[in-house]
Amino acid sequence: MEFSSKLLEKAVGEMSQLPGIGKRTALRLVLHLLKQPKDQTRFLSEALLGMRENIKFCKKCHNISDVEICEICANDKRNHELICLVEDVRDVMAIENTGQYRGIYHVLGGKISPIDGVGPSQLTITSLVDKVNSGCIAEIIFALSSTMEGDTTNFYIYKQIKDTSVVLSTIARGISVGDELEYADEVTLGRSILQRIPFEIALKK
Amino acid sequence: MEFSSKLLEKAVGEMSQLPGIGKRTALRLVLHLLKQPKDQTRFLSEALLGMRENIKFCKKCHNISDVEICEICANDKRNHELICLVEDVRDVMAIENTGQYRGIYHVLGGKISPIDGVGPSQLTITSLVDKVNSGCIAEIIFALSSTMEGDTTNFYIYKQIKDTSVVLSTIARGISVGDELEYADEVTLGRSILQRIPFEIALKK
Repeated sequence: MEFSSKLLEKAVGEMSQLPGIGKRTALRLVLHLLKQPKDQTRFLSEALLGMRENIKFCKKCHNISDVEICEICANDKRNHELICLVEDVRDVMAIENTGQYRGIYHVLGGKISPIDGVGPSQLTITSLVDKVNSGCIAEIIFALSSTMEGDTTNFYIYKQIKDTSVVLSTIARGISVGDELEYADEVTLGRSILQRIPFEIALKK
Repeated sequence: MEFSSKLLEKAVGEMSQLPGIGKRTALRLVLHLLKQPKDQTRFLSEALLGMRENIKFCKKCHNISDVEICEICANDKRNHELICLVEDVRDVMAIENTGQYRGIYHVLGGKISPIDGVGPSQLTITSLVDKVNSGCIAEIIFALSSTMEGDTTNFYIYKQIKDTSVVLSTIARGISVGDELEYADEVTLGRSILQRIPFEIALKK
């Protein structure tokens, strides 16, 4: 692509560094900004920069937060002995949306993935092990996605904490509510039969 | 969506103002920036802001440019009597890429579209009519996209300059080179038969 302006080229170049945004999409976005009032670009730039410079992570659960201890960790009404292990802030938001969970979280910050150069030391695993060793945790719910990286990470953490008295559980895998059986993948359907639950328990939900 | 941080919420909010980027995509992009070095966000913000604040438009053809008269308009070797009428900088880049065109451009800045609130006065139509009236233009090639808005804009401009001696032409519409006839739409195939060209002329290209 040959640009008629270095300023345009630079903006498109930086924009296309974002994942899933190629040069053409970046050009479309930048031309959109050019048609809008200057304030929109200023607000966008300031919001991104302000976020990147000033964002904090909760000292307890490592979730993104504006304060040292996030709202969830600071809430006395939640069960602080129950920890849900998730990958990032999106998972916390998804689980909070269900309104079903009253424990606290531990945000790993990613999954072990040698291909992407992410090793255990870049995640908050040490902090989790410390929590477990402190003796004030009753149960950990593993809620990482069930990909190869997720399973590897689960197993790595499991090996480090399996000899403690903490109960280790994982979120249920099965057919989504409302889904047709015939379209479900075999692994999920197979598991949902092996890990069937008493009808009366399902009835109560 | 409930965010755990106002800074994050603001960044996602501004990002999702961009066309085709919803809240979820915006969150994914912002979390990506959080995992990258701070410099990447700074470069992106500065590039966008610098572009929006300092970008210029060529005084002759209204294309995006860093100088008052763009490279194409300042080039003496190009035919300044031949003008190609296009919508925006992307069209200029596409035509320049072909290496087939030696005239200059006139960038309209959009198409007449009452639904989007774009009227003739927001486009550079007056400037085009002035060029035509100055008498130094021999031919104008209409190269707007053949949508309803494109056709409306073409016709609006045509009415204003049809009584001059300027030759008015439009880019050829037809079957793309390499395309199979059976998959072509009827309008294009129909036109390509009605507007057929002598075989020997096609042979020379």
